[in-house]
Amino acid sequence: MTTTTADPATDLTDYCDQLADAALAASRSLAASSGRQRNAALREIAVAIRAGRDELQKANALDLEAGRSSGLSPAMLDRLELTDARIESMAASVDRIADQPDPVGKVIEGRVLDNGIRLQKLRVPIGVVLIIYESRPNVTCDAAALCLKSGNATVLRGGKEALHSNRAIAACVRRGLESAGLDPAAVQLVNTTDRAAVGALLKMEGRIDLCIPRGGESLIRAVVEQAHIPVIKHYTGNCHVYIDAAADDQMAVDICVNAKTQRTGVCNAAETLLFHAEAASSGLLARVCEALAAEGVEIRGDAQTQAVFADAKTATDGDWAAEYLDKIVAVRVVDSLDQAAQHINHYGSKHTDAIVTSDLAAAEHFVQVVDTANAFVNCSTRFSDGGQYGLGAEIGISTDKLHARGPMGADDLTTTKWVAYGTGQTRG
Amino acid sequence: MTTTTADPATDLTDYCDQLADAALAASRSLAASSGRQRNAALREIAVAIRAGRDELQKANALDLEAGRSSGLSPAMLDRLELTDARIESMAASVDRIADQPDPVGKVIEGRVLDNGIRLQKLRVPIGVVLIIYESRPNVTCDAAALCLKSGNATVLRGGKEALHSNRAIAACVRRGLESAGLDPAAVQLVNTTDRAAVGALLKMEGRIDLCIPRGGESLIRAVVEQAHIPVIKHYTGNCHVYIDAAADDQMAVDICVNAKTQRTGVCNAAETLLFHAEAASSGLLARVCEALAAEGVEIRGDAQTQAVFADAKTATDGDWAAEYLDKIVAVRVVDSLDQAAQHINHYGSKHTDAIVTSDLAAAEHFVQVVDTANAFVNCSTRFSDGGQYGLGAEIGISTDKLHARGPMGADDLTTTKWVAYGTGQTRG
Repeated sequence: MTTTTADPATDLTDYCDQLADAALAASRSLAASSGRQRNAALREIAVAIRAGRDELQKANALDLEAGRSSGLSPAMLDRLELTDARIESMAASVDRIADQPDPVGKVIEGRVLDNGIRLQKLRVPIGVVLIIYESRPNVTCDAAALCLKSGNATVLRGGKEALHSNRAIAACVRRGLESAGLDPAAVQLVNTTDRAAVGALLKMEGRIDLCIPRGGESLIRAVVEQAHIPVIKHYTGNCHVYIDAAADDQMAVDICVNAKTQRTGVCNAAETLLFHAEAASSGLLARVCEALAAEGVEIRGDAQTQAVFADAKTATDGDWAAEYLDKIVAVRVVDSLDQAAQHINHYGSKHTDAIVTSDLAAAEHFVQVVDTANAFVNCSTRFSDGGQYGLGAEIGISTDKLHARGPMGADDLTTTKWVAYGTGQTRG
Repeated sequence: MTTTTADPATDLTDYCDQLADAALAASRSLAASSGRQRNAALREIAVAIRAGRDELQKANALDLEAGRSSGLSPAMLDRLELTDARIESMAASVDRIADQPDPVGKVIEGRVLDNGIRLQKLRVPIGVVLIIYESRPNVTCDAAALCLKSGNATVLRGGKEALHSNRAIAACVRRGLESAGLDPAAVQLVNTTDRAAVGALLKMEGRIDLCIPRGGESLIRAVVEQAHIPVIKHYTGNCHVYIDAAADDQMAVDICVNAKTQRTGVCNAAETLLFHAEAASSGLLARVCEALAAEGVEIRGDAQTQAVFADAKTATDGDWAAEYLDKIVAVRVVDSLDQAAQHINHYGSKHTDAIVTSDLAAAEHFVQVVDTANAFVNCSTRFSDGGQYGLGAEIGISTDKLHARGPMGADDLTTTKWVAYGTGQTRG
């Protein structure tokens, strides 16, 4: 086991170097571990979290006190708090990750070549994964557990306002690893709030294989700007619902209301509704807008929308690109499905986009031409979620196209390895 | 169809913008095309290449003449030349790509959720792929064809010494696209040798989705340094063969000689041989070195190698990291399989690494702990190749871990899309 001896306060460069070296060494030993060992460690982590409740809450109290005196908002303080229920929920989530099937070793493809070589493509751990996140301390536990499940060492950099809580959680996690005989260095918490540490870690090609930033767009952009290592990004969720000429009226109302209002602050909530001109002239547009207004949603529409729903404010170009995360929706009338697709491809964030239609050809065309991670037919955008998809715990949702797209589960924390077994074959 | 009107000589920024816009628009229309249409276009491209032989050779003569007067090496001039046989081989390769199964639309996973939503994860085109390459003009045709097969628009930036040849090939490709009714803007040749064009294109996030540089390490490092878009990299091939204590002697000799000498200038040739101490003391190390020396290979060994093979020169630390691409090999004696794995993980390039052993546990342990794209048991490293693997045409070999690892075929030029068909489901 490699440990960090440098003090981050006085020697940040050495500290980050040691931390990355320790994670790399631990990732090598994890690569030699079995799924049974990793699951045993996950069970022990859940035990340690439950047993560590007092210690976790003592540490959390320090963060809450500091947060109150530095004027954190009530919402932020709420996110930070480790209640009994949240500690149990963290532990239960680790247990559920242990229950999931093992992504490592899964055979993706394979064949016997003409020359007799038996070739397989397998899922294997990526190596060392850096997770950068904001205030919620439960991410420390969730991210470490998902990375461990998939055989990766983790470097965790949480928000500064949660440092005491994160330290206490990481201590439980490392205790769990030790109990199961795995290298506790497999989970490294960046034990400083110095921002320069992030910059240094993001440049550690060859030691850190991947960064997943979890947080707002500004955090993610700052990470991308500094990174030399690959970053899987989740920018924004500007999701659309397109109401086709052939939409069922009641279904259109239900899906639009659900997609917009069931939870507004989330990335898979709808932000723009597009109506085929026939759905505008038929009265459906007005009916949807009335149903949304009844839920307290502010409508911002184009001229055609305003013509049939007088309460609509005027939408500007900025509205088409906005991720409101609030009770506001942009509404536009289009002449065709292709115009809807062009709008979505131009303004959207390639997250989740839905069509409501009874026309099979329209459904299939929409699914083909809309460039999005999640193309939905006749259901709410709110379903685009790893849990809903049955992927188990989710490490995030990728709006990238490379490596992983859409909700990311444990499989997406692996890479592949071609393995060939021969009997002495040489190439002629 | 979008076209470029700006002159790259006088207005490079506008030219690059128009080129990326045209490629993006064409990628949208390709997304709506069927595999049958794309295959028809590939057939038409092969026809156009064959029919364009005179035109291709006339353009090629200009490049060859310029190359001769600027003092290109005979090897470089040879790579540049479009002989009758090479033109036929380009066309035949496009026909073979048409024959391959369609990667687009392949269902990777899927299920019916509890709520009745039918969920599928499909392969879909990435969008716009930028290929940056060096002197060989056939890459223009191969890369365009593979990207078209997988539904992607391509921006091609070849070596300046092949510009006339590349223009003529791209004209044939676009003629083929037009004959099949697809947008010829789907293949864009960067029609300038100005290096600033590369810098501009590498920053076109949102319009260019991926860059694949094909060439030497310095080209790739320069691309990575400038890129804001994702880059799939192939750095070096420092491949290893480890001769275990339980290796079959004749198999060890055959595999080492084949891996080192069958073709030395390629990335999957072996550069370092590691011998278990027992394979050194048994005489096997000496026998392998003699067989290599008989093929004209220079041996650079550690002290233990020199002790049993006196002709070995002294290996330095630089030798362990070297990609010789030549008749030179580094040889080291290790005490254990784990020490061999540590050496490979430390000095290797994660490309292709082989073990020769009759011990099943040793083979399995090697495959698990060596962090490499291609882990081979009892066969030559020379087999790590898309053609050998049955992937069809190869766009390159990735030494990255994200998105694609090892030989990359048409599947690796796709991303995924989750598609959900519902009947009005909303989230409760």
